Order: sequence, then C-alpha cells, then structure tokens
Amino acid sequence: MLEVILLGTGGSMPLKNRHLSSCMLRNNGSSILIDCGEGTQIAIKECGLTFKPIDAIFITHFHADHVSGLPGLLLSMGNEGRTERITIIGPVGVQRVVNSLRVIAPELPFGIEFLELNDQMGTFSIKDYLMTPFMLYHTMECFGCVVEISRLGKFIPQKAIELGIPVALWGIIQKTGSASHGDIVYTRDMVMGEPRKGLKFCYCTDTRPIPVIEQMVKNADLFVCEGMYEDEEKLERAVITRHMLFSEAINIAKNAKVKRLWLTHYSPSLINPELSPGVSGIDEAVCGIDGMRTMLKFED
Amino acid sequence: MLEVILLGTGGSMPLKNRHLSSCMLRNNGSSILIDCGEGTQIAIKECGLTFKPIDAIFITHFHADHVSGLPGLLLSMGNEGRTERITIIGPVGVQRVVNSLRVIAPELPFGIEFLELNDQMGTFSIKDYLMTPFMLYHTMECFGCVVEISRLGKFIPQKAIELGIPVALWGIIQKTGSASHGDIVYTRDMVMGEPRKGLKFCYCTDTRPIPVIEQMVKNADLFVCEGMYEDEEKLERAVITRHMLFSEAINIAKNAKVKRLWLTHYSPSLINPELSPGVSGIDEAVCGIDGMRTMLKFED
Repeated sequence: MLEVILLGTGGSMPLKNRHLSSCMLRNNGSSILIDCGEGTQIAIKECGLTFKPIDAIFITHFHADHVSGLPGLLLSMGNEGRTERITIIGPVGVQRVVNSLRVIAPELPFGIEFLELNDQMGTFSIKDYLMTPFMLYHTMECFGCVVEISRLGKFIPQKAIELGIPVALWGIIQKTGSASHGDIVYTRDMVMGEPRKGLKFCYCTDTRPIPVIEQMVKNADLFVCEGMYEDEEKLERAVITRHMLFSEAINIAKNAKVKRLWLTHYSPSLINPELSPGVSGIDEAVCGIDGMRTMLKFED
Repeated sequence: MLEVILLGTGGSMPLKNRHLSSCMLRNNGSSILIDCGEGTQIAIKECGLTFKPIDAIFITHFHADHVSGLPGLLLSMGNEGRTERITIIGPVGVQRVVNSLRVIAPELPFGIEFLELNDQMGTFSIKDYLMTPFMLYHTMECFGCVVEISRLGKFIPQKAIELGIPVALWGIIQKTGSASHGDIVYTRDMVMGEPRKGLKFCYCTDTRPIPVIEQMVKNADLFVCEGMYEDEEKLERAVITRHMLFSEAINIAKNAKVKRLWLTHYSPSLINPELSPGVSGIDEAVCGIDGMRTMLKFED
C-alpha cells in the first residue's frame, strides 16, 4: 500500500488555506517528502502526520516555492530529537543550496546524505520505494519522479511442501527472503510465484508538457501533475514561465492512460480551481486541494 | 499614530494558528516589519495587510524562527512588482545571512540596503520611525528595539500673526518645516510650541531579563516582550535557553512603568498561554495572539 497526501497545492506564493508545493508518501513506516515550500512543517501537522518517519526529501528544483520550508523543517526535526540520518535528493547543486539555507540552521543533531540527480541515473531505492527521476522542462533544471512499490509473487505452499521446508520457515522466507534448515538455504524464488503488479505513483512539477512525461507516467495508479493555469488563454504565459495549462496535464494523463490525475501547483491568481465538465478517458481527474489524501492499494 | 500588529506569536516551531515571530508597525503610509519567521507572508495576508508599504525589515537575530520567512517574502514582494529599495536591519552579519538565504531568491527587481547594528549606534530614523536598537542577552547576538514617533509642538497662531506671516504659509511651515516670503525664511520654531509627547513602542525577543531592558522600555505606550514559558518551574530551562518566564517579563514591565504589555514568542509546549490572575501595576498586560492589533494614539 502507498498513501499519498497532498500537503500544499500552491505555486509561487502561499495563500490562506493553500500551502506551497509539497507531497508526502507513506509506506510501511517510512515516509518520503516531495518538495518542501514555506509552511510545509505546518501542513504536515495539519494533516496529523509527524516528521519522524521521513527518511528522504526529494526536491524537484530550487525555486523558493519548492524548498523555502526546508531549513525550518530540518530544525523542527532536530528539536524533536531526531538523530537518524536523512537523505536529501535533488538536482546537481542540492548540497550547495541546502547548506546555504542552513545558515539559519547550522547545528542539527542528525546527519544529511545528499543524492544529486542526473537524467541517466535510472532507478534507485529508499527503503521500499523505487524511485526513478526524469528531467522536466522548466526555467531551471527540474526533475519529475516515478515512485513504485513492488509486490512479491504469491506464496505457493505446494512448492514448499514438495521441497520439504518446515512450516515454521515459510513466513521467514516470505518476509526476509531466505531461511536455512540444516545445510540448505531456501530462497523466495523456490516458493513464490512471479512478482505481481505493484503500485505506481508519479509527481511532476514544474514543467511544460514534453514527451518523456507521457512515457514515464504510463499506467500510473496516481499522477500528481502541475496545472498552473486553468484558463486556455494563459497558454502564452504558460510557455514563457514553462508551466502547464490544466488541459495540457489532462492530455498527458489521457495519453498515458493513468488511473487517476490530481492537479496541483496553482497560480495564486487561480482562486477556485475546477475542472471543466466533460474530462473523460481518466477514471478520476480532480483538482487537488491541501490535505487531500488517498491510499493506493494493490490489486485483488 | 502608530499601529502595531502582532503577526506571529510562536517561538521555535510554528503551530496551527500560531505563526512564528513577526510584528508589523504602520505609520503614515510606511510599514516596518520586525522579524520574519516562516509563514510571515501568509500572516501579513491573513491580517489584510500588503507588502508594498514595507520600507524596512528589522531582524532581531538569526535564529530560524525569526528569519526563515525572509526569502519567500522578498520573492513575493518581487512578484508583486516592487522596484523600491528596501532596508534590512540586523546584527552584524545580516548581509551575509540574507545573501545566503537568497540562494533560492537570487533575482529580485528591487535593491536591498543593509544596516548592521551595534550597541553604540544610538537612534536612527526610517521615514518617521525613530529606532533605537539595544543588545539583549540570548544564545547569539540579538537586539531589542525602541521605536518612537515624535510629535511636533502646537502651532501658535498669535506668534505667526506677530511675525506677519501670511496665512497661506501657516500650513506649509507646519508641514514642511519652513517657508519663505520675500527674503525672509520662516521656520517651525518661530510659530510652534515645545515638541509634545510622542509615542513609544518596544519589542524585545529573545532574551533573559537584563537591566538595560528596563531602562530602554521605560514609560513605553506598548511593550511587546517574549514570554517563552508560563510555568515558574521552567526557570532553569529559561536560563539555559536564555528566554524569559511570563513573570520575568511582567516584572520588567512593572518596573519600567509601561502602559501596556503584550507577551509573545511562546514555547510550542504552551498550548493556551494565559496570564495568572492578579497581574497588577500595568494598565493592560495580556498574552498576545496572532493577529492582535492596536492603534497607539497621541495624548489629548
């Protein structure tokens, strides 16, 4: 299972009831924070979440509305007694930017590990999260991210019986990957079927629509995508600021056959974002609001 | 007149409905912001204020809860089209700290003038505000500030008549300070009485109680003072973190004979700050809350 919580849906400037960009993922006792605009630590509390399980923070790019909440969040984590290292992931320069912001948070009781992204790095894992960053097209280097949770195959008792594996070891093999009995080591592949369909989540802001997005988000269970402007007449502005219209995000979602689309990162000029009637071809396409959350579940 | 608006009353960590330290002063179309913790730009909007009239930002010290909102605020000012220079005032190093935070706000359409404080600098003016910083006693260099609005003497028509000053010039002399008629220059001192009592506001956080505070805030119309802890048993903690108990702030206010005291900068552990009954010797002593505001008016 993968829980997704939209913490903040604002672009550029925070508004009352609209925090800046931020999204939390939760799986199996570990959380990943994507983006950390000003007010993120408040948004986390308003959603009833805590800082402690956050193992990594993924910064899409260095515009202030995506990272200005970071020094305050790190300090608050420290004030709560955190000692476990945290990983901060972002474009090349993330260490320099974070260290520069830490002029007001120089002493923390925990270490920071930095992971600088490039477009060819493929997939890496943070706990059970499989993360695949990909480069977007914005006014500065910016990354989208696919986050997948894989799912093991079904346990097949008949195989375990045939191999004479004691029943007491069945659970251990499934959970840890292997178990020994006498001189024999039993592994998952001996007793489990093919891996089953996992979960796929994608986060994509800030960017113009480019072909790689459609490829990367294909068949996602949930696609959180920027929609800076609702009004079609704002196309020229969107091209200049390298953002998207609602219709452009919807188009990507349709072509990529995603199950659900949540729009986010609205222009402050957009007071009541809403989708035009007649958005079809996607099971669920909605305008995200702060605090919106869902639990993505494995099939069957 | 001087309007005072408490934007945020939180110390260390923001809470829901409690922004971090910040206070706005308004006088004659010009505003001064004192401290700028995370969320200050939201707090400004929630109070129905705007960024445009802010001529100076006074940063008491460089702990994150007093300055983390600055890069976002500067960017939002820029996004709103500001081109007028702004003055940022703070302890020695303020330029280095602000420039370091500006790693995420490198391009602004307006200039910044820095004013670095020292304990011997006396009084300086920003528009009609007369500001006198003084050093507090915290875990890092930190300044309190007296802000005064002076008031001219009364205009004495009899004197103007005796000097033969044309009536058309009376208002000009009072407003601009002087006016000429023929070869003669008439100045305020010729037609106005002794300067009358002005307004005095003081802001003081973060600090232990030290004698200079009492001297500086003497007879203030309003004293905004930190009260990190309500519980008397937190004295040891207050000594270590160099903060004050409510009772210590009240004691200063009483001895300095201030008219009104507003407490601010509460520990996040303090959910419902309230003054013990029986606080006497001060006309008004209250626990500040976010958005609390008052208009200080000249006497008579």
